[in-house]
Amino acid sequence: MSMESPSAVNPASESSSESSESIVASKKQLKKEALKAEKLRRKNEEAAASSAASAKLAEVDPLSENYGDVSLKDLHSKAVTGRKWTKICSLDAELANRTVLIRGRAQTIRAVGKKISFLVVRRLSATVQCVLTVKEGLVSAQMLRFCNSLTRESIVDVVGVVTTPTEPIKGTTQQVEVQVRKLYCISRAVPNLPINIEDAARSEEDIKEAEMAGDKLVRVNQDTRLNNRVLDLRTPANQAIFHLKCSVIDIFRNCLRSEDFVEIHTPKLLAGASEGGASVFKFDYMGQPACLAQSPQLHKQMAICSDFERVFVIGEVFRAENSSTHRHLCEFIGLDVEMEINEHYFEVLDIVDRLFVTIFDYLNEKCKKLLDAINKQFPFKPLKYLQKTLLLTFEEGIKMLKDAGVEIDPFGDLNTESERTLGRLVLEKYETEFYILHRYPSTVRPFYTMPCYDNPLYSNSFDVFIRGEEIISGAQRVHEPDLLTARAEACGVDVSTISAYINSFRYGTCPHGGFGVGLERVVMLFCGLSNIRQTSLFPRDPQRLVP
Amino acid sequence: MSMESPSAVNPASESSSESSESIVASKKQLKKEALKAEKLRRKNEEAAASSAASAKLAEVDPLSENYGDVSLKDLHSKAVTGRKWTKICSLDAELANRTVLIRGRAQTIRAVGKKISFLVVRRLSATVQCVLTVKEGLVSAQMLRFCNSLTRESIVDVVGVVTTPTEPIKGTTQQVEVQVRKLYCISRAVPNLPINIEDAARSEEDIKEAEMAGDKLVRVNQDTRLNNRVLDLRTPANQAIFHLKCSVIDIFRNCLRSEDFVEIHTPKLLAGASEGGASVFKFDYMGQPACLAQSPQLHKQMAICSDFERVFVIGEVFRAENSSTHRHLCEFIGLDVEMEINEHYFEVLDIVDRLFVTIFDYLNEKCKKLLDAINKQFPFKPLKYLQKTLLLTFEEGIKMLKDAGVEIDPFGDLNTESERTLGRLVLEKYETEFYILHRYPSTVRPFYTMPCYDNPLYSNSFDVFIRGEEIISGAQRVHEPDLLTARAEACGVDVSTISAYINSFRYGTCPHGGFGVGLERVVMLFCGLSNIRQTSLFPRDPQRLVP
Repeated sequence: MSMESPSAVNPASESSSESSESIVASKKQLKKEALKAEKLRRKNEEAAASSAASAKLAEVDPLSENYGDVSLKDLHSKAVTGRKWTKICSLDAELANRTVLIRGRAQTIRAVGKKISFLVVRRLSATVQCVLTVKEGLVSAQMLRFCNSLTRESIVDVVGVVTTPTEPIKGTTQQVEVQVRKLYCISRAVPNLPINIEDAARSEEDIKEAEMAGDKLVRVNQDTRLNNRVLDLRTPANQAIFHLKCSVIDIFRNCLRSEDFVEIHTPKLLAGASEGGASVFKFDYMGQPACLAQSPQLHKQMAICSDFERVFVIGEVFRAENSSTHRHLCEFIGLDVEMEINEHYFEVLDIVDRLFVTIFDYLNEKCKKLLDAINKQFPFKPLKYLQKTLLLTFEEGIKMLKDAGVEIDPFGDLNTESERTLGRLVLEKYETEFYILHRYPSTVRPFYTMPCYDNPLYSNSFDVFIRGEEIISGAQRVHEPDLLTARAEACGVDVSTISAYINSFRYGTCPHGGFGVGLERVVMLFCGLSNIRQTSLFPRDPQRLVP
Repeated sequence: MSMESPSAVNPASESSSESSESIVASKKQLKKEALKAEKLRRKNEEAAASSAASAKLAEVDPLSENYGDVSLKDLHSKAVTGRKWTKICSLDAELANRTVLIRGRAQTIRAVGKKISFLVVRRLSATVQCVLTVKEGLVSAQMLRFCNSLTRESIVDVVGVVTTPTEPIKGTTQQVEVQVRKLYCISRAVPNLPINIEDAARSEEDIKEAEMAGDKLVRVNQDTRLNNRVLDLRTPANQAIFHLKCSVIDIFRNCLRSEDFVEIHTPKLLAGASEGGASVFKFDYMGQPACLAQSPQLHKQMAICSDFERVFVIGEVFRAENSSTHRHLCEFIGLDVEMEINEHYFEVLDIVDRLFVTIFDYLNEKCKKLLDAINKQFPFKPLKYLQKTLLLTFEEGIKMLKDAGVEIDPFGDLNTESERTLGRLVLEKYETEFYILHRYPSTVRPFYTMPCYDNPLYSNSFDVFIRGEEIISGAQRVHEPDLLTARAEACGVDVSTISAYINSFRYGTCPHGGFGVGLERVVMLFCGLSNIRQTSLFPRDPQRLVP
């Protein structure tokens, strides 16, 4: 085996490394190798075009059936052959000497002399080194040329024998090699990709270290990433982000279902704005003026009026806000909850507490691999949170800020900077980066917010913060139609556009409350990411409507 | 106990009945009682207004603390008392002689003489009979008057002692009574509801039987229901429909998650129409022309190009179709699946088969109570389906129709009537109401559909039917950008608006396929309902944008 794959060459070493010590020890060396590899890659790609033509000579090869581009027609569901595919992530020493069939992307192609080529094949975040060694009756020179003609990111099918090299393989996730016997290209990528996956997967730290050593590595900026999102999303960190996002929804749903919540869907097409204000997308609905829901607020409350008792909504929320910040999107996923209250909005806070502690615990315990993949490119410290979530009143928050010398209006809203500062103060004092701030001034909350029992200047409302940024807004609601109408009018809402909503409270309504979570913010802040666009698959902001 | 609640009076008997025999036996009698009860109810309601005023006399009552309207301010989260609420559905004989606190709706209020009143309290689909009997030191005449002043559907808190009557209670779900000690009204409903819950909950069968007996019961038409959806949704059948819908999503998610699918969210705001055609809502996006996604088609495929391998999307789908049929909505929930294919689109059909058989089995086995509640108002026969789903080619379908004398274009699409007829023929021949029809003519499928290997006039596509109506459309997709462009142009699609989509296939793409399910149709057809509006919480159709 080691003859076929001389470990001294270690051709896959450019892309990753195993233990953190070895990373530190060999980082400079790796950078140099990476640069060398990059040059080699470009040379290979230039060669690829001409090889592609010469690969056609393969027709005279007696082994010509064992490799080549699969014709499109043969991919139109020609037959069910019953062949078994092996997943790259499950390739291990137990399969040694077995012949396997794998499908994946040609991540790197590297010829070493005229007799050996190394092809790293990737599938999701797993990679394996496939080796072609010219040998009569097994691998022809033409087959090697065909392999060298492959473009990076092309889809290939490989049939080969699993072998276990004597020394560990540094550049791939799987610790076996595949000695290639057959190699087919299913779908060829264009030779010049707009972004290379290694470039997109590189951490800022690595780029800066290389710079300090006088080397320049490619830094892919955010617009280039988002313009070529289909390539950008293939990096291990991005794959992990969206698998993690899915896990958050899993736990959110399971947790609420186990507490007798029912999932509902509220209409996104509305006759009137759900949250008032100007930040609403308007359109023509069969001749009627209509707008896109800025939240499921009105209808989730109407579901409570309809006796659903405890509901949640997972769905898109649309905001026509022209604010290009790191934490605003024009379309994002709202995780919305609404529930009857027996006597106090603390019942809602209890749900927030249980729900999020469960989510955080789960992510830390069950999603380690995903967190590691994110951490590798975007290093972050684990979120500090308490098993019983800290609850502070707005007044207490204001006091902490004032004590720290921040000038602040005790009945105004907190701006982004104050929220950040308060987050830092709370972390210092209570050792948590996740907390609830409640009893906000009534004037800074929406019209449907219930005033406090003892002081109508305050309201039964709350925001929840991760690392000093708001992820949740919630409150007890006004469930009495006359008070609700008065509050709406006082807040300048056109009551005629929401009469169906207000009338819903005329048929007997339980006191109730709820909250809305910005899913992308939760993922961004849990992982300490710097931009919300990183947690939206195909983000929409004031400048971006594609891809 | 039986002294406090004489079973001869049986005041709750109007609303429901236990065994099916007793239903048949006493139906006429029940109808008469229902009519009587209705008259009594109206009389009571008229009395209520005046009683409300006289109830104010209660101030002189030494027991006045034990009843009354709770002031709104006292519902602003005044205190956390630690009081225990008992759910109405868990009231049973084991709680006999215990004092409980319950909250629910005043479903019916009925005075019997001047000393006794019966109050049926409902919570979700559970009901219990609460009894007020005037007795010194326990229940005053004023308290009885307060009870009689309650309007139906008001929210009440009841403190009382659980008793077990000697004879079964016919009109409530719970087989115990509550001897009222305290009674508070949390939220008063208006005296004249736009629809009464019993009217909305009545089956067509009951109305017709009453008609044949010369009685006229109120039939609530669909528009009245939808205009007053918050009341309409309180019926047991409607409650069950939306709990069932939630269960379908549970199983859909869990089943796909267990098969390594990841949930993603695709943008609803697009620069170009995802499915072409005119049925698209257009709007202005920060100065750019934009439209609402008619499906997650393009982006779920782009997620496959991004290496997500197997994805699903649960979300709103928007169609500006001006067709007011029983099965079209302008906004509905799409359950969308997309997955890599190793060699044949039958791999996608295997997922459809496993997924839906699992869903149907689950609903039949675990959701019996919900199905019973729906069946009671909207009788239906259980869906016939095979444990291994029937697969027919389009050609076979055409032949069956032709053999049955239906004139049909072998390369045209099936219209609604042909689909129904074919459903009937399939049921007769194969004893299933759930089947897959595949290899549709290419001309009747979208541009992104892969043609068949052996005959490009047909395509690797399929529809899935329940009871003769389509619920799913799916196919293998064209994953080669040049063929895709040619197909789009041939189908009259403006390629410039979907260039980001087409370019996604230039960077190496696995063969893939998938399908889209109309969630509301699945629920409607599984339950044999006649109108899709019944399975949408707040439906949107060409005429309806509210509530």
